[in-house]
Amino acid sequence: MKPVAHKVKAYSAASATSPLAPATIPRREPTDLDVQIEILYCGVCHSDLHYARNEWHFTQYPAVPGHEIVGRVTKVGPKVTKFKPGDLAGVGCLVDADLSCPYCRKGLEQFSPSMVMTYGSMDQHLNLPTYGGYSEGIVVTEHFVLRIPENLELAAVAPLLCAGITTYSPLRHWKVGPGQKVGIVGLGGLGHMAVKFARAFGAQVVVFTTSPNKTEDALRLGAHEVIVSKNADEMAQHAGTFDFILDCVSADHDINAYLNMLTVDGNLTLVGAPEKPLPVAPMSLIFGRKSLSGSLIGGLAETQEMLDFCGQHGITSDIEMIRMDQINEAYERMLKSDVKYRFVIDMASLK
Amino acid sequence: MKPVAHKVKAYSAASATSPLAPATIPRREPTDLDVQIEILYCGVCHSDLHYARNEWHFTQYPAVPGHEIVGRVTKVGPKVTKFKPGDLAGVGCLVDADLSCPYCRKGLEQFSPSMVMTYGSMDQHLNLPTYGGYSEGIVVTEHFVLRIPENLELAAVAPLLCAGITTYSPLRHWKVGPGQKVGIVGLGGLGHMAVKFARAFGAQVVVFTTSPNKTEDALRLGAHEVIVSKNADEMAQHAGTFDFILDCVSADHDINAYLNMLTVDGNLTLVGAPEKPLPVAPMSLIFGRKSLSGSLIGGLAETQEMLDFCGQHGITSDIEMIRMDQINEAYERMLKSDVKYRFVIDMASLK
Repeated sequence: MKPVAHKVKAYSAASATSPLAPATIPRREPTDLDVQIEILYCGVCHSDLHYARNEWHFTQYPAVPGHEIVGRVTKVGPKVTKFKPGDLAGVGCLVDADLSCPYCRKGLEQFSPSMVMTYGSMDQHLNLPTYGGYSEGIVVTEHFVLRIPENLELAAVAPLLCAGITTYSPLRHWKVGPGQKVGIVGLGGLGHMAVKFARAFGAQVVVFTTSPNKTEDALRLGAHEVIVSKNADEMAQHAGTFDFILDCVSADHDINAYLNMLTVDGNLTLVGAPEKPLPVAPMSLIFGRKSLSGSLIGGLAETQEMLDFCGQHGITSDIEMIRMDQINEAYERMLKSDVKYRFVIDMASLK
Repeated sequence: MKPVAHKVKAYSAASATSPLAPATIPRREPTDLDVQIEILYCGVCHSDLHYARNEWHFTQYPAVPGHEIVGRVTKVGPKVTKFKPGDLAGVGCLVDADLSCPYCRKGLEQFSPSMVMTYGSMDQHLNLPTYGGYSEGIVVTEHFVLRIPENLELAAVAPLLCAGITTYSPLRHWKVGPGQKVGIVGLGGLGHMAVKFARAFGAQVVVFTTSPNKTEDALRLGAHEVIVSKNADEMAQHAGTFDFILDCVSADHDINAYLNMLTVDGNLTLVGAPEKPLPVAPMSLIFGRKSLSGSLIGGLAETQEMLDFCGQHGITSDIEMIRMDQINEAYERMLKSDVKYRFVIDMASLK
């Protein structure tokens, strides 16, 4: 029996070279454990652009990006216990997984072999590709739906679902806190969230940037200090002094220069993903017993913890609101880093 | 006042292109905290060759390599408390440091800015370069002299002072033990010690080697399993299953292939140091929250712990004994990895 579906308005790309344009897509009727959400805002992540343009070579067309989703619950399946119609709800990069594998059981659903991404995976119910948040509504199994603190500006919460958890998780994993000197490389969508979190965790926060004109903003966002990475003298002054560095840059950059900033036992974690391999000098790691790591979003429990932390500390993303029909222009501006610091689509503009 | 010194026989290189040849070198008379040691055996580390040939560009000639030193105490300064004449004693890669900096206070003398290497640093007492263990005797401040378990074959203990601690330290730091699957890449001087330690710590030990003919030896040394790294099928079968990998290879090799072997939160630590930067694919680290680290020998307390552990578990290096005048030939064989698994110089041959 074919599962029951309903149609919703969306914006999709028909091919790697097509602009995004209005479309309708199917969503399944909520099953027992499903939550149906009216999407109010959706953040715009660089991954959305990579996916729409097939830059990762796995895009299924029509492609509907968007994994920084906030909205309001409109319907729930009979076995749903955490949500009821009218509640605020969020959806991030994941919408399903088996919940029984060793990673799921550890709360690391993002590493489960059965993990279903919000877009670019397969929806097992409809046997169709998953479609993301550039749409009126979405239906997601309860475990992957997040509670949203009521006290925050809702549009500015949307980017927490990807940019927020992507930076919160490694800062927590590596136990960033008081007494530590923490560097944030790159002040974009990810970096500006990392600054807010690292400051809230009590660390000494230093932003590395190539743009001296970002200094004022970095300090406003919570940095104690800013290092212009092109300035060799400034870099040399801070060499060997950082406990932890979160590298949020996707463009090519000299990774050994940042490893050189770490103190003994320091860690540098990558959340930006440059396309080309990073040429890591072994001696950069051996002298000082340093580590270079990566981190990928976070599990569901940790994402909820992050949202609750944001509610308690009044943390949201700095956003620029756009209409749905401005998405193609927003992509072009994003490519030029011309956004402070995250575009968020007002989904009312899609009606 | 010029400090008092005595002369000892040694083997030294006069230039980057000279073979090692007989020489005499000065050693200081023991000061209050010094231990004078008659060297009985000295291991031959690949670093010795790098240093003798100025491949690291800091060699001071005449160059006397050797930092895997065991012998017997012949004289002690009046304030020495841990040693008396007649005791066995060992000296590794370090012979001095201020002992007051934050790293020294944490037992990480190897990272102290004031650290004095056994060869290639400056001896502050004589205002001369430090000279290593290819010699009859050495004088070292007590803190940097190790106690040697009496129950072990002395010549086979020498390599523990560098190859031993270099592999013991990261296996301990990353808490290798029962229930873990641990990979050792490369079965040479370092790798064969890593296999022995990882097995003694209770891990499931797997050796990666390019040479199928090393399989039997790997199993004899303690490996549970051997993977021939050129065999893509074997590699694929084990992908994503290792908790920890110790990479003991100095030659160029595909680091991403080994990162791909790690499970979620796995760590790969480099102790071999390939000359060229390693091209690390960011996604190799991001998917699975993996880490790539380096490690450099170990501090003095940990080196003593390692020696005591070896005494308790009957662990030594597999060695091939040579005479001092065979050192140049031994270097040529070492370059071809033609040694099982460490050359040790019988210093009686220098008399």
